[in-house]
Amino acid sequence: MRNLTVALDAMGGDFGPRVTVPAAVQALSLFPELKVSLIGDQLQIAHQLSLLDCQPNTRLSIVHSDHVISDSIKPSLALRHSAKTSMNMAIDLVANGEADACVSSGNTGALMALSRFRLKVLPGIDRPALVSALPTAQGKKTWMLDLGANVSSDADSLFQYAIMGAALAEEHLGRPARVAILNIGAEEIKGNDLVKRCSEMLSQTQSVNYVGYIESNQILLDKADVIVSDGFVGNICLKACEGTAQLFIDKLKAKFSGSSIKGWVARKLFADLFIELKTLNPDQYNGASLLGLRGIVIKSHGSADVHAVVNAISEAVHEIKRQVPSRISDRLEAILLERHH
Amino acid sequence: MRNLTVALDAMGGDFGPRVTVPAAVQALSLFPELKVSLIGDQLQIAHQLSLLDCQPNTRLSIVHSDHVISDSIKPSLALRHSAKTSMNMAIDLVANGEADACVSSGNTGALMALSRFRLKVLPGIDRPALVSALPTAQGKKTWMLDLGANVSSDADSLFQYAIMGAALAEEHLGRPARVAILNIGAEEIKGNDLVKRCSEMLSQTQSVNYVGYIESNQILLDKADVIVSDGFVGNICLKACEGTAQLFIDKLKAKFSGSSIKGWVARKLFADLFIELKTLNPDQYNGASLLGLRGIVIKSHGSADVHAVVNAISEAVHEIKRQVPSRISDRLEAILLERHH
Repeated sequence: MRNLTVALDAMGGDFGPRVTVPAAVQALSLFPELKVSLIGDQLQIAHQLSLLDCQPNTRLSIVHSDHVISDSIKPSLALRHSAKTSMNMAIDLVANGEADACVSSGNTGALMALSRFRLKVLPGIDRPALVSALPTAQGKKTWMLDLGANVSSDADSLFQYAIMGAALAEEHLGRPARVAILNIGAEEIKGNDLVKRCSEMLSQTQSVNYVGYIESNQILLDKADVIVSDGFVGNICLKACEGTAQLFIDKLKAKFSGSSIKGWVARKLFADLFIELKTLNPDQYNGASLLGLRGIVIKSHGSADVHAVVNAISEAVHEIKRQVPSRISDRLEAILLERHH
Repeated sequence: MRNLTVALDAMGGDFGPRVTVPAAVQALSLFPELKVSLIGDQLQIAHQLSLLDCQPNTRLSIVHSDHVISDSIKPSLALRHSAKTSMNMAIDLVANGEADACVSSGNTGALMALSRFRLKVLPGIDRPALVSALPTAQGKKTWMLDLGANVSSDADSLFQYAIMGAALAEEHLGRPARVAILNIGAEEIKGNDLVKRCSEMLSQTQSVNYVGYIESNQILLDKADVIVSDGFVGNICLKACEGTAQLFIDKLKAKFSGSSIKGWVARKLFADLFIELKTLNPDQYNGASLLGLRGIVIKSHGSADVHAVVNAISEAVHEIKRQVPSRISDRLEAILLERHH
């Protein structure tokens, strides 16, 4: 079995090593072929390891870094002042071939800028896009992109998102992915120029299973496997779903908690309901990928807990095994050939 | 007491007179000062009235129209071929001063195009916007616009939406409205050029209580009274909330229904929970306004039931009483004066 190495930015996110170190240890027990490099403050990481009765070994190494990237730094500044940060050093390990993927819970804009600068985009790709798998009512997954890597996009970029999303989804599904464009109506006359132009391009591409427009009240209903939009719209849409889901879960919790008989009966009878509803909150997953780079970069939530960081590492392992960047590259090349004939 | 007349497009929506006629009769019993003109097929309307043991009277008139606007017609075609439709005749009654407001559940694009053509926009307004009140977790309301009257907007239009939204919200609230711009982050550096330029304009306007950016996972939490966005983004955001809310309600319903003891206990214990959760679905309200016109036009859902159409008529009555168009006009004039000094 080939070894897979994940470079984990141990300092990123709201909790740093308190969360990333236990997550690394758990991930190692899940994947026998996995190695993890923890990048960050040596003392803090060693301390967290000792709390778990662990120490560095052949599968778990520490790469020391004094610096952490600020959550509020602008991407342009990050490029100039982040060389020695744990995030940049994690990306560098991928760029140098010492790791197969990087996982970070740090500043998204900085992760995007540094990854793009160090790893470069794949041929045929203008900009990387942030993609994540959303749950559906049917227990399936739908991949949505761009979730905010870019604040504006042209039709060519949107088209590229569709190809990248299809390549990723198909690696998971093992069948052609239904690709849809997020729009304000399902009819052909609806929408702005951007979606209309991209729709035309996808309609003319035989190797993409384009199924048309999808409205945002349908995205959790398993009507498409891949949903593309520009990063501004995608981010707004995803967070609107997450916010509404959270609001409903909070209201239910308030009803079911407390020491009343009603609360007690509710908890006894409907423990499974909570679990089911929680799986419908798009926020439950963790591990959005930056697609379109010559390397694998996984963005974990800033507020991710141990379980969530383990999920992000699992996504990295999956993408390494499936060689997602080269699949995307192959797919794009085939489509460009098709379009030139 | 001054009489208020609402012109109701009796043929619009999925159910036509079967829903609009009972709604008109109910609204008349709610508002003693209200008169309703039902515009549509005389025979169908009279039949529905007879089922309710009603007939036309001094407060309830029928204006016959042979034609109904198609749900799929393009707005540009609607302008040329809709003169005799119930929708256009309802708008005409407002344009001629025979009615104070128009309510229609018909084709949104056509309603927008016909209203703009017949009623004209207010001075200082480039484009009307669709606004609706969303529920919040705190039992308050938040007005959101544009919800899809326009598929693209510039910063000036967004600024105008903010003024119009503030004028409407303040008529309901009786206090200065907190105005926010929908964005992908709360920090100043986040977002695209459109929101940044509008944010700058609002920051420099003293007579608007601008509170900054709001993310879409916060819109149901009473953090702002007015939320502005371009029509594409606003429509996507609203429907994402509605779709998620509906999904959760459906899942709960499935759990609580059935003849099992569990279902029975659940229904007994949690009847109030359903009602509470339903009030959190943005879709529960009806009666979005087309703001920015020299007249009051209320768009009702195509799928609206009797109760929902009564809500839309109530919104029309409220806006007539508060003289919303002239309030917007005054507000804009004051702000334009402020900006020129």
